[in-house]
Amino acid sequence: MNKKRFTKVRKILEEKQVDALLISSIPNIIYLSGFSGFSKEEREGFLLITKNHNFVITDGRYRSAVKLGLKDFNFVEIEQGQSLTETISIVARKNKIARLGIEKNNITVFEFEILSKTFKKIKNFSLSSLREIKNEEEILLIQKACSLADKAFDYILGKIKEGISETELKFEIEFFIKRSADISFSTIVAFGENCALPHHQSTNKKLKKNQIVLLDFGVKIDNYCSDMTRTIFFGKATTEFKKMYQAVLEAQKQAIDFLIRNSNKDIKASTVDKIARDYIVSRGFPAIPHSLGHGIGLEVHEDPKLSPNSKSKLSLGNIFSVEPGIYIPNFGGVRIEDLVLLTKRGPLLLSNANREIIEV
Amino acid sequence: MNKKRFTKVRKILEEKQVDALLISSIPNIIYLSGFSGFSKEEREGFLLITKNHNFVITDGRYRSAVKLGLKDFNFVEIEQGQSLTETISIVARKNKIARLGIEKNNITVFEFEILSKTFKKIKNFSLSSLREIKNEEEILLIQKACSLADKAFDYILGKIKEGISETELKFEIEFFIKRSADISFSTIVAFGENCALPHHQSTNKKLKKNQIVLLDFGVKIDNYCSDMTRTIFFGKATTEFKKMYQAVLEAQKQAIDFLIRNSNKDIKASTVDKIARDYIVSRGFPAIPHSLGHGIGLEVHEDPKLSPNSKSKLSLGNIFSVEPGIYIPNFGGVRIEDLVLLTKRGPLLLSNANREIIEV
Repeated sequence: MNKKRFTKVRKILEEKQVDALLISSIPNIIYLSGFSGFSKEEREGFLLITKNHNFVITDGRYRSAVKLGLKDFNFVEIEQGQSLTETISIVARKNKIARLGIEKNNITVFEFEILSKTFKKIKNFSLSSLREIKNEEEILLIQKACSLADKAFDYILGKIKEGISETELKFEIEFFIKRSADISFSTIVAFGENCALPHHQSTNKKLKKNQIVLLDFGVKIDNYCSDMTRTIFFGKATTEFKKMYQAVLEAQKQAIDFLIRNSNKDIKASTVDKIARDYIVSRGFPAIPHSLGHGIGLEVHEDPKLSPNSKSKLSLGNIFSVEPGIYIPNFGGVRIEDLVLLTKRGPLLLSNANREIIEV
Repeated sequence: MNKKRFTKVRKILEEKQVDALLISSIPNIIYLSGFSGFSKEEREGFLLITKNHNFVITDGRYRSAVKLGLKDFNFVEIEQGQSLTETISIVARKNKIARLGIEKNNITVFEFEILSKTFKKIKNFSLSSLREIKNEEEILLIQKACSLADKAFDYILGKIKEGISETELKFEIEFFIKRSADISFSTIVAFGENCALPHHQSTNKKLKKNQIVLLDFGVKIDNYCSDMTRTIFFGKATTEFKKMYQAVLEAQKQAIDFLIRNSNKDIKASTVDKIARDYIVSRGFPAIPHSLGHGIGLEVHEDPKLSPNSKSKLSLGNIFSVEPGIYIPNFGGVRIEDLVLLTKRGPLLLSNANREIIEV
């Protein structure tokens, strides 16, 4: 249990003038309790934080696991026939909780309707501004994840061969990572014109000579994620490819140079996005059809967002991706993505894999 | 595109007296469009079904993918600076949609607040009763997934050796499956007393002689899931283990026998749960701390639920798990889980892996 985090969370109780915070999103449950056993796809457990108590509300399947893993929490078991949300109402009545803080971007309308019957006042709260600032332990885990991703990239370069399919190459990357960690998202492997689809799902398409290969993959270590993209050329890189590649690489460099020049200053996330975005357009290429970057931690995508409309300011301890890209339908694409940590001494790139043009 | 499904979905428009249905949950998006490219963890796309149109609303990253994969949908691109939910409002105004159907168990309070500004009337709808009844193609895919899981089980029996860790065995299963398909959920491997935790997360615990080994894993083929559990004994099975095992196996048999005796009749899901549940208690063991079973398809857990409080009735075309279990803290546990398809000729077990006691 991380006491600092709980102190900060209890400050939210005061600020929002509520009696309890209901932590329902999985990353926030992990952030506060360290327990990552609840399913991401189903509602299996919630935390309820009051001024003096930490409750974990879940069903009998988790009885032993919770008692082992969540020693600072009072275990509230959902009784047969009750729903998770109904059980919260019972705990609330027992503990005189009338005003509740919820995560509005996580609680469903269905759950809200049940909660509304019990609580006089329901307010929104968010932990994303806490989670944006990584502590040493979090930085270390993300660094470890990045470093394993670097190794995975080295390994995979040796697997890129004529005739291998996107799915097979995806399997090879994930296989390598899973020997000692987990993947943080389903790996993207795209060949040739499929590189023009920023979120391509791998197919059985086989690699041919003189095709672009785009690899976007991440490692997860103790729940903390990395995210990296490299675009390489299978064969002798063409002039067209080189032009695209240099434009993307230079866009990334300009964004990072801006971070260097402005270290320890207030930087708007949208400004960094604009620098890379404008550069790519200035080189005659189509605008990036996605954000320049995103925070990363317990989730692959979290705050701060580096996008034209982002209201985020960047702070020390932020870790985020810088990932400009150019996509030309029916031709191909290039994306280069690295994670950056903002330190007092300036931005630190967390991945070391070669960023220059690689021909295999 | 499956025309029958769209006809049924458009019936919901009439029944609910709404102008459009907003399909926001990933499994329902896949169910209606076949497109599985949207992230499960983030909001990247919605479907909007009106009397005469099918819209897919998503951002620029998916432009090409959607045009290739969703030919019967009108592509609505989210403009820079707009959110997904805001874009729906724009489509609604253009198409005179005033009354909207939403999935209340999927739409968040945050999204609801935005939608409420645009739509005069918002009603709840659900596709789960449609999805409960599997068609031939769905049955075939789940059967394929079960059959690969059988093979994975055979394979893994050869890997159970003294000193192997839970994590390593988990890796071996997933490695086998991923060579030709995907996993449907994170594999559970538990040794010894860890088998007492129904949702145990694998650790580095190493296998010793005379320990129980519990394996709960699933395969996903073309988005359709399987789910199976086997509990085996590493060494010569003890009397205690045999008693537990036989009680669990007999509980499963009694539930399935009941389905056989009542084929083509109206059966309450809760009755099937009760048969297995009561049997285990009658043998002097603690009650099952979870449901007896769950429907399965695009999601690992879907309707019908086989639990004491379930209101579901079972119907032809249902596929669900029957998975009684006994868990003894600090000792171990046994669970046996198979999928059953209800056909006109009675219940059909979709897995063929040995259900009797296996000693390795």
